[in-house]
Amino acid sequence: TIAKSIIPVEKQELLKNVNLIANIRAAGNAYFDQDGFNNFRFQMEQFRLEFKGNISKRTFFRFRDRYTRPATSESVDNISRSTDLAFVEFQMKKDSEFWYLSFGKMCADWGGFEFDTNPIFIYQYTDFIDAADNFLTGIGSRFNLNKQHSISLQVLNTRTKSFDELYPGDVGLIQESKAPLAYIANWRGNLFKDKLQTIWSYSLFNEAKNYFINYASFGLQFTPSKRFQIQFDYKWCDEQLDREGIITNYITSGTAYDDRTAQNTVYNSYWTRIDFRLIPKVNLFFVGFIDKGRWDKANTYYANADSKQDIYTGYCYIPGIEILPSKDLNIKIFVSYVGHDYRFTDFAKSSLNNSNYSNNRFTFGISTPLVFL
Amino acid sequence: TIAKSIIPVEKQELLKNVNLIANIRAAGNAYFDQDGFNNFRFQMEQFRLEFKGNISKRTFFRFRDRYTRPATSESVDNISRSTDLAFVEFQMKKDSEFWYLSFGKMCADWGGFEFDTNPIFIYQYTDFIDAADNFLTGIGSRFNLNKQHSISLQVLNTRTKSFDELYPGDVGLIQESKAPLAYIANWRGNLFKDKLQTIWSYSLFNEAKNYFINYASFGLQFTPSKRFQIQFDYKWCDEQLDREGIITNYITSGTAYDDRTAQNTVYNSYWTRIDFRLIPKVNLFFVGFIDKGRWDKANTYYANADSKQDIYTGYCYIPGIEILPSKDLNIKIFVSYVGHDYRFTDFAKSSLNNSNYSNNRFTFGISTPLVFL
Amino acid sequence: TIAKSIIPVEKQELLKNVNLIANIRAAGNAYFDQDGFNNFRFQMEQFRLEFKGNISKRTFFRFRDRYTRPATSESVDNISRSTDLAFVEFQMKKDSEFWYLSFGKMCADWGGFEFDTNPIFIYQYTDFIDAADNFLTGIGSRFNLNKQHSISLQVLNTRTKSFDELYPGDVGLIQESKAPLAYIANWRGNLFKDKLQTIWSYSLFNEAKNYFINYASFGLQFTPSKRFQIQFDYKWCDEQLDREGIITNYITSGTAYDDRTAQNTVYNSYWTRIDFRLIPKVNLFFVGFIDKGRWDKANTYYANADSKQDIYTGYCYIPGIEILPSKDLNIKIFVSYVGHDYRFTDFAKSSLNNSNYSNNRFTFGISTPLVFL
Repeated sequence: TIAKSIIPVEKQELLKNVNLIANIRAAGNAYFDQDGFNNFRFQMEQFRLEFKGNISKRTFFRFRDRYTRPATSESVDNISRSTDLAFVEFQMKKDSEFWYLSFGKMCADWGGFEFDTNPIFIYQYTDFIDAADNFLTGIGSRFNLNKQHSISLQVLNTRTKSFDELYPGDVGLIQESKAPLAYIANWRGNLFKDKLQTIWSYSLFNEAKNYFINYASFGLQFTPSKRFQIQFDYKWCDEQLDREGIITNYITSGTAYDDRTAQNTVYNSYWTRIDFRLIPKVNLFFVGFIDKGRWDKANTYYANADSKQDIYTGYCYIPGIEILPSKDLNIKIFVSYVGHDYRFTDFAKSSLNNSNYSNNRFTFGISTPLVFL
Repeated sequence: TIAKSIIPVEKQELLKNVNLIANIRAAGNAYFDQDGFNNFRFQMEQFRLEFKGNISKRTFFRFRDRYTRPATSESVDNISRSTDLAFVEFQMKKDSEFWYLSFGKMCADWGGFEFDTNPIFIYQYTDFIDAADNFLTGIGSRFNLNKQHSISLQVLNTRTKSFDELYPGDVGLIQESKAPLAYIANWRGNLFKDKLQTIWSYSLFNEAKNYFINYASFGLQFTPSKRFQIQFDYKWCDEQLDREGIITNYITSGTAYDDRTAQNTVYNSYWTRIDFRLIPKVNLFFVGFIDKGRWDKANTYYANADSKQDIYTGYCYIPGIEILPSKDLNIKIFVSYVGHDYRFTDFAKSSLNNSNYSNNRFTFGISTPLVFL
Repeated sequence: TIAKSIIPVEKQELLKNVNLIANIRAAGNAYFDQDGFNNFRFQMEQFRLEFKGNISKRTFFRFRDRYTRPATSESVDNISRSTDLAFVEFQMKKDSEFWYLSFGKMCADWGGFEFDTNPIFIYQYTDFIDAADNFLTGIGSRFNLNKQHSISLQVLNTRTKSFDELYPGDVGLIQESKAPLAYIANWRGNLFKDKLQTIWSYSLFNEAKNYFINYASFGLQFTPSKRFQIQFDYKWCDEQLDREGIITNYITSGTAYDDRTAQNTVYNSYWTRIDFRLIPKVNLFFVGFIDKGRWDKANTYYANADSKQDIYTGYCYIPGIEILPSKDLNIKIFVSYVGHDYRFTDFAKSSLNNSNYSNNRFTFGISTPLVFL
């Protein structure tokens, strides 16, 4: 029989283990701001092509590239901004699943279930995740302590762009770090027969000489039954230099603004997602989150500011329905409303000249990680 | 026998149905203008990588990306300009080939056989198709009425760039549309035992508030014998706002030009292609087309203009020969001359300061949609 | 047996012959200049995705694209700068391995073993190769004279960017060539039972009207035993117009600099690599090279210049160790030091205001051409 022998055995082994995936999220979006309907348009919200698989028993490879970001060559790590993932992972001990070591551009292993979700299933990211550089180059390791617990440690570049590109107003005033690295520790737990899962993490970024960022996130997932799930994340970030730029953006309209990046900003974020599988083909969900931004150095610029001056609170609420038409494929047809209100404190209104605004949308479409090989 | 079982059955099913194709057109081009030989260079005229296939019985996926366009993130639909196609198509009724529904970035289903041809086999596009945004994001549906007739309907974004980017001179003077969509209807017919085929379409674009574009195209294909084929397209486009920018480009040198996009432009195009298969490995062809551009608002700027002022006529004639060396692969080796003359009307010469010009080339090379998986 | 028949035989044939390869080089780099430690960062030094294989018995296809270069559309050959290779190669005579013909964007077949090495295994390129446009579009042919000798001839565009883009200061002063082509001849030899191999080449570039570049390179490889190998390249390039821009860059700080590209520059380069396989899993290597740059037109600008004025000498020495952990995969884990010193002549120091500098780095990481299909 000819057919059996045409493809060499080694290639069959490769093929068995390799996947080509098109991560798609296409939607029709009607946008509303505080003054009402603004704009309708169709958008390819996500399109990320992915190749992954075991090249050999102990070598794993993963590559994912976006077609919704400019393809560039970034100044720090040399690889395109459009490339999310490009790493090789080695299983370090034969016949063991204990220790893994990765090299390349990878996902910073930040905790929380929001961040852990495939981006195509996210309707709206919290401000912090939306603004962060989530894909960084370096070395990662993972230890599976047992079936319940795993620990990961990463040493990565702290960013993909250079200090000069990110902080142009601070060049000459703040000294660049000679080894601008990020150190990330993560714990994943499966407790009570997988009914309670955790993804917790702590990260330290060296953003400039004597300027650090501390970031912690705590994610919990309860799955009391097959039909019901609750996820909750708490994220806290203290930035001696406002890497995310959210607060920096809001202070540029202030009278005392001096072109510099904000210092001593603190972000707190509370996120939850509730899923209720009405019938196998219908999922009802609710996502809600609150983002808070604080500027602890406001009082060095403004006499009327507190020493821990709150700047804004963002409220987001996303009720929706997902239809899963196929038994074999993970395809979701969704209809949802994303309400997103930004409320500024009196200080931010009067001294920084910000006004409350909304960025809402009615959205419908499909999301699917299409496995085409 | 080991070989049989290595690749899982599901993966074999995927592999059977998925194709990876490199659409290639590489040529040596000697360019001539009205004053004679200008320049010779080799060009990769087309290079489009394509993945397509059935992911499941009722789910089809197609992705095509160019390596001859900058990879960007477009302001309206968020996906790269280099990406032609990125859509998922569902067969809506089980065991039926009647109704198909597509989501994503797709080819606007404009009529005509020129537009329907794989771009690698086009020597020179008519002005209108050359200037149009042919790949748009939205929803499409297709109905196979019977083996002879199919109808398609699409609702797509009217463009990939924002109003501000396309019409900078009209910002503040023309109000943007809140739902800038295009509506496209298409009929494909197979008549007289496939000897006569049709691709007709009508499209309505909402380009700005109270500004519309009407576009119709009528394509006919006669195949009297296996060796002989004639195609003919007529295209008509009436643009309240000159989306294509062809006339806008020609009026910029006029004395009354005010930085604005031309309004009330009308394009008419007549295109034909004749193929004669001399022997199985040799195809003789002739392509000819005439493009005409009119500016119906010329008389509000220029006293000497007609109310329906013709601006230019483009004449293109392309005789050539295609060698098909392989029985198995669709590879064409071509030698051809592209004569392309632009002739301006007296008004366009005297008041708009245009001069007749030519953009001819002698071209040879290969074109092939290489199926490499 | 179901498995046998699912994948059609033709697809099995394709699959057997096609490879998908991720060419990866990821490193941690500590940079040092003449004043000491400067900067540490992780870098994806190389990431090139490759598809290649026989589409039919006589048709070969190869495509390679970088994710470490901006994806653009180049003005001369129309294809993205990120694309290294996109060509089709035909075996011209049935059942013969004598004559091959290629069309598309391909590697200029310059001689030398440095240039012939997969880029992921290069720690530091010589200045000339680093600055050259190595991937050009056109036509190539290869003749396998016998098992010992092959000859290749190429006619390619001389560059990917236009004259205006590369030589902005010379527009209007130097006349552009109407057919700016490069002609490349290459000889590859295997002598003394493969113990001595050669890659020699000569190239002529028509860079502008009456301005030519002559380039020759001579590569030798001795493999006296399985454990020991020496490679040596000599490269010489005489540029009537300084295409590489290395000397042009060094004369911009001179008092008589007039914004023009340097003329009559001569580059000489001596490169060697020595490999010693200590044990099967450990390779010790040393790479050393010397680059010399001369400016034969210096004396038309500066009275104190020689008629063949040397400008600089670059010295590079790279000792290192490569660990090869896998028997099946070509994975290298490397640790190395790259010392790279630039020493200027007295003329270049005093009249052109250059100072000696160093660009050293300590580097560790992995390099592998991962075959994932």
